[in-house]
Amino acid sequence: MDNNAIWRIGILGVTGYAGRELLSLLGRHRHVHVGLAAARSEVGVPLRKLAPGAPAGAVCALDESLPLGECDVVVCCLPHGASLPWVERVLEAGRRVIDLSADLRVPGEDAPRWSREAVYGLPELHRERIRTAQVVANPGCYPTAALLALAPLLRAGMIDGPVIIDAASGTTGAGRAARPDLLFAEVSENFRAYAAGNVHRHLDEMRDQAHRLGNGATPELVFTPHLLPIRRGILATIHLSLKAPLEDPAAPWREAYAEEPLVRVMEGEMPSIADVAGGNGAAIGVVPVTGTSSPRLTLFSAIDNLGKGAAGQAVQNLNLMLGLPEAEGLL
Amino acid sequence: MDNNAIWRIGILGVTGYAGRELLSLLGRHRHVHVGLAAARSEVGVPLRKLAPGAPAGAVCALDESLPLGECDVVVCCLPHGASLPWVERVLEAGRRVIDLSADLRVPGEDAPRWSREAVYGLPELHRERIRTAQVVANPGCYPTAALLALAPLLRAGMIDGPVIIDAASGTTGAGRAARPDLLFAEVSENFRAYAAGNVHRHLDEMRDQAHRLGNGATPELVFTPHLLPIRRGILATIHLSLKAPLEDPAAPWREAYAEEPLVRVMEGEMPSIADVAGGNGAAIGVVPVTGTSSPRLTLFSAIDNLGKGAAGQAVQNLNLMLGLPEAEGLL
Amino acid sequence: MDNNAIWRIGILGVTGYAGRELLSLLGRHRHVHVGLAAARSEVGVPLRKLAPGAPAGAVCALDESLPLGECDVVVCCLPHGASLPWVERVLEAGRRVIDLSADLRVPGEDAPRWSREAVYGLPELHRERIRTAQVVANPGCYPTAALLALAPLLRAGMIDGPVIIDAASGTTGAGRAARPDLLFAEVSENFRAYAAGNVHRHLDEMRDQAHRLGNGATPELVFTPHLLPIRRGILATIHLSLKAPLEDPAAPWREAYAEEPLVRVMEGEMPSIADVAGGNGAAIGVVPVTGTSSPRLTLFSAIDNLGKGAAGQAVQNLNLMLGLPEAEGLL
Amino acid sequence: MDNNAIWRIGILGVTGYAGRELLSLLGRHRHVHVGLAAARSEVGVPLRKLAPGAPAGAVCALDESLPLGECDVVVCCLPHGASLPWVERVLEAGRRVIDLSADLRVPGEDAPRWSREAVYGLPELHRERIRTAQVVANPGCYPTAALLALAPLLRAGMIDGPVIIDAASGTTGAGRAARPDLLFAEVSENFRAYAAGNVHRHLDEMRDQAHRLGNGATPELVFTPHLLPIRRGILATIHLSLKAPLEDPAAPWREAYAEEPLVRVMEGEMPSIADVAGGNGAAIGVVPVTGTSSPRLTLFSAIDNLGKGAAGQAVQNLNLMLGLPEAEGLL
Repeated sequence: MDNNAIWRIGILGVTGYAGRELLSLLGRHRHVHVGLAAARSEVGVPLRKLAPGAPAGAVCALDESLPLGECDVVVCCLPHGASLPWVERVLEAGRRVIDLSADLRVPGEDAPRWSREAVYGLPELHRERIRTAQVVANPGCYPTAALLALAPLLRAGMIDGPVIIDAASGTTGAGRAARPDLLFAEVSENFRAYAAGNVHRHLDEMRDQAHRLGNGATPELVFTPHLLPIRRGILATIHLSLKAPLEDPAAPWREAYAEEPLVRVMEGEMPSIADVAGGNGAAIGVVPVTGTSSPRLTLFSAIDNLGKGAAGQAVQNLNLMLGLPEAEGLL
Repeated sequence: MDNNAIWRIGILGVTGYAGRELLSLLGRHRHVHVGLAAARSEVGVPLRKLAPGAPAGAVCALDESLPLGECDVVVCCLPHGASLPWVERVLEAGRRVIDLSADLRVPGEDAPRWSREAVYGLPELHRERIRTAQVVANPGCYPTAALLALAPLLRAGMIDGPVIIDAASGTTGAGRAARPDLLFAEVSENFRAYAAGNVHRHLDEMRDQAHRLGNGATPELVFTPHLLPIRRGILATIHLSLKAPLEDPAAPWREAYAEEPLVRVMEGEMPSIADVAGGNGAAIGVVPVTGTSSPRLTLFSAIDNLGKGAAGQAVQNLNLMLGLPEAEGLL
Repeated sequence: MDNNAIWRIGILGVTGYAGRELLSLLGRHRHVHVGLAAARSEVGVPLRKLAPGAPAGAVCALDESLPLGECDVVVCCLPHGASLPWVERVLEAGRRVIDLSADLRVPGEDAPRWSREAVYGLPELHRERIRTAQVVANPGCYPTAALLALAPLLRAGMIDGPVIIDAASGTTGAGRAARPDLLFAEVSENFRAYAAGNVHRHLDEMRDQAHRLGNGATPELVFTPHLLPIRRGILATIHLSLKAPLEDPAAPWREAYAEEPLVRVMEGEMPSIADVAGGNGAAIGVVPVTGTSSPRLTLFSAIDNLGKGAAGQAVQNLNLMLGLPEAEGLL
Repeated sequence: MDNNAIWRIGILGVTGYAGRELLSLLGRHRHVHVGLAAARSEVGVPLRKLAPGAPAGAVCALDESLPLGECDVVVCCLPHGASLPWVERVLEAGRRVIDLSADLRVPGEDAPRWSREAVYGLPELHRERIRTAQVVANPGCYPTAALLALAPLLRAGMIDGPVIIDAASGTTGAGRAARPDLLFAEVSENFRAYAAGNVHRHLDEMRDQAHRLGNGATPELVFTPHLLPIRRGILATIHLSLKAPLEDPAAPWREAYAEEPLVRVMEGEMPSIADVAGGNGAAIGVVPVTGTSSPRLTLFSAIDNLGKGAAGQAVQNLNLMLGLPEAEGLL
């Protein structure tokens, strides 16, 4: 790698919350240049109006004339369902792609071969494969929070019985579409669950990755997302029973994440969303539960849904793909 | 009962959030009159400055010269720890008392006899005993939410294994003391757990009542409170496994609460805090969980922590004690 | 008047924020009954789902078969522009109507005669004419706040030079339509002006009423509305110069509002939105300005935009029209 | 200047909101190193717990043994009143200082000579003098917002009559002290003015600078601050009358700020707090007022109170003092 190279990056879907956050992060990144920023709406709007720290230039129309081949890597921030044709176009142009939609995270058996070869872009779990991937499927925000907290126990096969995941997210996780239930007057001074009863789309993704981590012996998951009256941030509160008590309860996380630049382990503490909001890292808290017959832990995992949960993680993947320091532009 | 009587009520600790809410509720109540409103601070402040709908009059000093004997019932809204001497004074004056502190909810074996005779003031569970009680211990906000959701299953002995209670509360639940962690700049755009690992004071109260409801065969509880960036309201998200599947999952709640004026059962729905905020009722949602090996439910219980979780429930108890319609002034 | 009569009220447009608030207020009102509640959407939804305290019944479709003639008074909460045909239908059915839209507040010369006879429903200014009106045009929220503060000086002709009105409103003032700029993620942690430069629709209404109050000698107005990250409430901060200093600066307001049940004057104080939120009154603060060459005042006027600024004021007008105590159901 | 030099900076009062923000900005700055971070409380706390992006190290005790002489520049973020002795100690150690308190902004005639030589650190107005200053008095947040908007007109002597400044700030502007009126439950869903009637401490500072800009012919100011339910950000809405109409109303600002890296002029638009929050710039909007007898403008000025209003402006001053590019680390 030439450390002085400036890589040329394209962003598709730059006007959504994740696209804007990416623009802000890449605008301040020392080794990349946003060469292309396209969207289906707000065409012609100066990028500097979209996000603080954005580079010069304006939003281009998302159409087939886009010179995708001139970018080193394209990051696709389009909504779920709209992403696949664009990923395919980038590959056809011979370029690498990071896709933020859910479409490539759990490819079915009968999906095209290139999509089955997409690497799940959670660097703490799949770092080596990301470095050389043609297509990286950037994880969902809830799975990122849950999997970082659960991975050390899943790998060690230490969990007994079901894992209860209650997670709460700020509203930017739902995107910028004008939905009545996301109006200020509906969200403010309110709190509610949604998609309860194990019916949220992110469950498949969590189960698939938990299965890989556990070599097939994975616990049941019960996942309940909630909507918080905040703009950005996720806190997952995770309950589980251990097969055997741990003498040093936080040891698995300390060991797993000792060298990780973007994961902070808080022993016996409860990370808050404010600990991570506006940043690109995750904070994990491990709290033993008293007064139960079998050994139990409550885990907390906090991320910024637009940072480590979306655009920040995309930059982390981009750094890996380009051979740059992994946390470049993210601390 | 003389339906036209106007009962004279005293409020001790009227300047806290629960005291103010009570003032507002009683100021609009057709059958009572606030004859005495005392506090340790803000003495002399007109009651109308404390709460909308408050009656005329001003805050009196909380001292031993208070004419407690002139009230029919005294409601004590003093902080935990400060309440007992005042409850005792009311009893010595020959009057009945409702105490909002935690001090009388789980009396120890060696507590004074009168405190062991206090009735736990959750009307949906202990209505008949409340009618004739000398001392009513008004429940905590978290226990109110959790117990209303769990009571039908606890009574029927249908729960298998531990019950996970993740609950989130607005900041008025923490009182009006100027704590740095409750400043707007710390709470806004934030969310965090506290007292995780089964160490919250309200656990004893929940366990004690659950034990009574279950005739001794009660499940383990894992209780984790969280702080929401809202002023008022609690949502409890409760996870449990059933001994046997329920054909009609919401039937136990429909049956238990069919006649209850202040409990609303929402089948397959997730109540939000907005459904109950500013009111005095509870909303309970029952959602079956899919994709698990044993039958599981997720229950939701929403209350306003100052309404059904404090002052509203105190008025409900007061109505019972005075022979008035139970929901008078609460709908 | 028969004090025991229960009047039958119709609500058109019951699903918006003002309609819901009205439903809540009328559901608790001792002398009226909501006989008809119609809307263009959410037809069939139980009224109790729309608002706390709502009566039994469900939303009817807003169509020409509505039995408007069976209501004593109809309150029309339809959006600006959609209201007039419905007001006309109510009049044709021989009934009285209160209209919450802007359409009848400043009728043009060539408007139909019945619309030119609509009475501007600010009871503190036009009480006697409201009692007997066939059509009451319920004032806008900003004009209500501004006019209550300015009326005593306008009547006395004491204002010298332009009046600067900076007002800030919660988002329910903008209605329930799903606009991208009203999403939680756009409004939270934000504050902005809109319609600056004297182009807001409410200016005509303020100018017209100021003109009537001042007998033609009215000052210029500069009105700038702002959007607050709160659900409900308006604070108007009003700056003006006096023709002559006032010895007792708050005297004009004390005198004007001494007998008003819903207006509270705060001398030398600054009312906050919390002083009025959730209620139906207005709070006015009068603060002399120091260090200027001519005598100046800063006035503050706080109302709840859904209370005194919409539904609460409609109920106040309704009480006047029905000969009931003016503040019935509003304190 | 040696562009590769790393300057050593000290921060006194690092645990307040401005101190933390400064820590975050300097931790990411390429040409400086935080060599000293002291406070009266939270001694020993790792800096990384205080702010994202903070460097390694921990909070030192603020006592007389601090090696102030080892820093190239010391930034003093202590509260008003506590700052002066520390500024004096830095000067005695032969070092330069930026003081964020109000103490040095308007030095009296009888203040020590060194304090009368402090330069008012608003770079857009006093850039050249800041470069060589020994002591820079960092401006208040409200004066920064107001003066940037007013400077072009003040300099040109174009304002006729009084200037009305209604400004609204997030709560971090009031500091981290645990005041009851800054609790979440008091601030949320609320909005209120404070220090109305021209009694706010920042007025002297505004008047003094306006006087200098206007060569003595300065207009009267009427300043009314308000408290917003947001964490950070200020919007000033400013009303004034012009001596003569402007053909191109935004021309004075376009010309004054054409080369300014941190000031953005928005013609005919109303900047929002979201346009600047989390950043270090100011956005100024210029809106002509219609329908008034004399030509009037409404100006809007938005800054982040912790950015351009405090720590960001301190870094801008620091860059000037060290001969670095002025916006280094601020975009």
